[in-house]
Amino acid sequence: MRNMELTHFDAQGNAIMVDVSEKGESNREAIAVGRITVSYDCFTAIRTGSAKKGDVLGVARVAGIMATKRTSDLIPLCHPLPITKAAVEFELYEDTCQVEVLCTVSCTGKTGVEMESLTGATVALLTIYDMCKAIDKGMTIGGVYLRRKTGGKSGLIENAGPRGE
Amino acid sequence: MRNMELTHFDAQGNAIMVDVSEKGESNREAIAVGRITVSYDCFTAIRTGSAKKGDVLGVARVAGIMATKRTSDLIPLCHPLPITKAAVEFELYEDTCQVEVLCTVSCTGKTGVEMESLTGATVALLTIYDMCKAIDKGMTIGGVYLRRKTGGKSGLIENAGPRGE
Amino acid sequence: MRNMELTHFDAQGNAIMVDVSEKGESNREAIAVGRITVSYDCFTAIRTGSAKKGDVLGVARVAGIMATKRTSDLIPLCHPLPITKAAVEFELYEDTCQVEVLCTVSCTGKTGVEMESLTGATVALLTIYDMCKAIDKGMTIGGVYLRRKTGGKSGLIENAGPRGE
Amino acid sequence: MRNMELTHFDAQGNAIMVDVSEKGESNREAIAVGRITVSYDCFTAIRTGSAKKGDVLGVARVAGIMATKRTSDLIPLCHPLPITKAAVEFELYEDTCQVEVLCTVSCTGKTGVEMESLTGATVALLTIYDMCKAIDKGMTIGGVYLRRKTGGKSGLIENAGPRGE
Amino acid sequence: MRNMELTHFDAQGNAIMVDVSEKGESNREAIAVGRITVSYDCFTAIRTGSAKKGDVLGVARVAGIMATKRTSDLIPLCHPLPITKAAVEFELYEDTCQVEVLCTVSCTGKTGVEMESLTGATVALLTIYDMCKAIDKGMTIGGVYLRRKTGGKSGLIENAGPRGE
Amino acid sequence: MRNMELTHFDAQGNAIMVDVSEKGESNREAIAVGRITVSYDCFTAIRTGSAKKGDVLGVARVAGIMATKRTSDLIPLCHPLPITKAAVEFELYEDTCQVEVLCTVSCTGKTGVEMESLTGATVALLTIYDMCKAIDKGMTIGGVYLRRKTGGKSGLIENAGPRGE
Repeated sequence: MRNMELTHFDAQGNAIMVDVSEKGESNREAIAVGRITVSYDCFTAIRTGSAKKGDVLGVARVAGIMATKRTSDLIPLCHPLPITKAAVEFELYEDTCQVEVLCTVSCTGKTGVEMESLTGATVALLTIYDMCKAIDKGMTIGGVYLRRKTGGKSGLIENAGPRGE
Repeated sequence: MRNMELTHFDAQGNAIMVDVSEKGESNREAIAVGRITVSYDCFTAIRTGSAKKGDVLGVARVAGIMATKRTSDLIPLCHPLPITKAAVEFELYEDTCQVEVLCTVSCTGKTGVEMESLTGATVALLTIYDMCKAIDKGMTIGGVYLRRKTGGKSGLIENAGPRGE
Repeated sequence: MRNMELTHFDAQGNAIMVDVSEKGESNREAIAVGRITVSYDCFTAIRTGSAKKGDVLGVARVAGIMATKRTSDLIPLCHPLPITKAAVEFELYEDTCQVEVLCTVSCTGKTGVEMESLTGATVALLTIYDMCKAIDKGMTIGGVYLRRKTGGKSGLIENAGPRGE
Repeated sequence: MRNMELTHFDAQGNAIMVDVSEKGESNREAIAVGRITVSYDCFTAIRTGSAKKGDVLGVARVAGIMATKRTSDLIPLCHPLPITKAAVEFELYEDTCQVEVLCTVSCTGKTGVEMESLTGATVALLTIYDMCKAIDKGMTIGGVYLRRKTGGKSGLIENAGPRGE
Repeated sequence: MRNMELTHFDAQGNAIMVDVSEKGESNREAIAVGRITVSYDCFTAIRTGSAKKGDVLGVARVAGIMATKRTSDLIPLCHPLPITKAAVEFELYEDTCQVEVLCTVSCTGKTGVEMESLTGATVALLTIYDMCKAIDKGMTIGGVYLRRKTGGKSGLIENAGPRGE
Repeated sequence: MRNMELTHFDAQGNAIMVDVSEKGESNREAIAVGRITVSYDCFTAIRTGSAKKGDVLGVARVAGIMATKRTSDLIPLCHPLPITKAAVEFELYEDTCQVEVLCTVSCTGKTGVEMESLTGATVALLTIYDMCKAIDKGMTIGGVYLRRKTGGKSGLIENAGPRGE
């Protein structure tokens, strides 16, 4: 049952950056999703700011895109990858006072950009948190998962929604 | 109602790193919490690895601690801070197949370490994700919030649990 | 004539990060200015984007602020400093098709934030260049100088405008 | 008039790192130029130092080369690129008390190294500024532009000199 | 006698990142070795910790792997490379109270990963030093050399042991 | 026997960045030493280059100084520190074909700069290695130890030479 084994360790159980030398290059894309739940006042401030001034989401978008490029610096066993596209989109849900982030990353490489999209999504959410923390100290980040992934040996992977919530 | 205004923007609505020059230094501490929900097989692999070899949580701990030091590099309007302590702890919950992370950060400075603790917690969770993604492609990160914060003008802040879940 | 000697070298002429251990801490601020000269079409695109969508200056502002925090990573003999404020403002001059940037940085430290403000200004301008280079391949960055500096031993320094132009 | 549109934004006007997945790889080179205008005393110190000790230009060269490798970390929407060559040269002009920098960068990639060469040139100039600021507080950086660029879809691009000066 | 010339300088003696644009890509691997000599008490603490808790070598392994990815940020004229594998192993020698590190790095690229493996080995050793410095202030790092290197124009290179000791 | 315990772990044996919040600030200095042993041809090239062109040691000095500022990025449990001085000196020993490096770092802080001086020394040596590896593939880095350390609770620490060689 090979699938049940952690691949980031050698036979002695030591952490390694796994060897992908022999893998071929292919076009890969990954889409990660996440959300931050804020207070009603905070939600209003974000929505108003995005429409005219105090553009919280504009700053968070830049932070998320830049973070995709720092992924292999942050995640110890992650391979450095030549990212060919990065985009961060937001959706506002007034009924739940939630901002949803969707981060799409592409590359032509030997491994996928799953971690890059997840890192971009979470750093975008952390940036929203940072800019709003003066008016809301109980924000919660959640529902961060991989929505879709194409390319590479495992092909298309899709998840309908977050697990365990 | 000053509290309802976003402080990371100037009067024209432009993003700024807010001026903390006149604030005094004080000892500050922040504790952030978060969790990752994994499959049962994955949970077993993490627990087994932590006990003997393939120490997923040991690697994630190092990643989380290192990330606290990169916070102001990642979050655009975050002040650089001389961190004086960083710790990352994990708790395993078998019934829900969840790993909870708790990241504690301290500093003596003009602003708090809220973002540092949240960044440490999320990068630790992303690292667990990375190491387990070969055996589980539906993991979800959630419940990331500030549990406790002391020091500075706002004094003690506590949240009993994540919001909106 | 001590003033005529380069301070970043020791008696043997070797580059050093000069010793500021014995200097006291004071509140310091520096304001750097610069500009980019673009084509008329490009100028129009920047101005239009800033008003509604395609916010070139919003992205450049974030890049400039983040760059102030990377200064000691980029400039070899620059001391790391705990920045307490960073702001980037733009002014549009239609008659000359120029965007002027003004970057203000503060810290409480043993040395000044001159380099931080200059680095923030130039990276903001480089970011404008990057976002506009598809429509204009002859943009020029110029007039980057220190407008004002306060704090520290040398006290107030002011320059009325760029030199040699 | 496609050329007049900013390519770093999607249809909604949100900043993106544009998708270059489908572009082919080619050999690319870019040469950026810039200059710093200094006082006569400062010019003499730089020239003297370069000849024997206190090698300002030697340090600035290293800083410029290293900065070319940090470009995608600094410029938000810039793609990471595998640089294959980086060189920084200086020319001293006594009549105008100017140091001119010329930064050449090559890569084999899907996008060009225009920003890398401009970033290398400006960081080299900022480093000269840093090392000389004790003896001259009115230095000005200017005339930073792309002199020459080859490779990629747009082929050869040349600019005879800086614009607007 | 071309071999006797330093390649990292141009005809004028200026440092450059040498042009590898025309070189083909090949699979390359490099193995670097090094060691730290510690006191007997310190050696015991490392060995005990690795067996149960206080896992010095586990932390050092992660630091070494992460450092391989930072090599071109640290070594001025080093090309950035897409690392495809990184592993750090330790061997404990009780008779000499030494910990030996062996760092293996692979890539598919135009230049080799010699510097990456050496950087990974030394940072792993420095991390051991950091974690043990409270109980031993006389530790020494030594014997850092390239054991083996394959791929590229120079083909197989092997060194039997460190030089000059 | 408190001295025999590793301080970078908590009571459960988990790695932590130890809490220095309560420690006072003091002026601290550390001097690390190391050496690289090269072939006679390589030694000659370094010596010649340093005298006129191809200044290997000039580049290595800049790399070493810059690395002192990256120490807490590289060494997982190392506190970030506001370095107030960094210097790198070299000594050439013809009889043994060795280049000795001596890296001095100061700060005013809650912990010492031992790791910063050791990191600066080793990165300077690795940079020499990089620049000379085309003419010598058997170079060895060794004898890296702390020569002297002042300030802080432990006061003056001195080591006469490297251990175990």
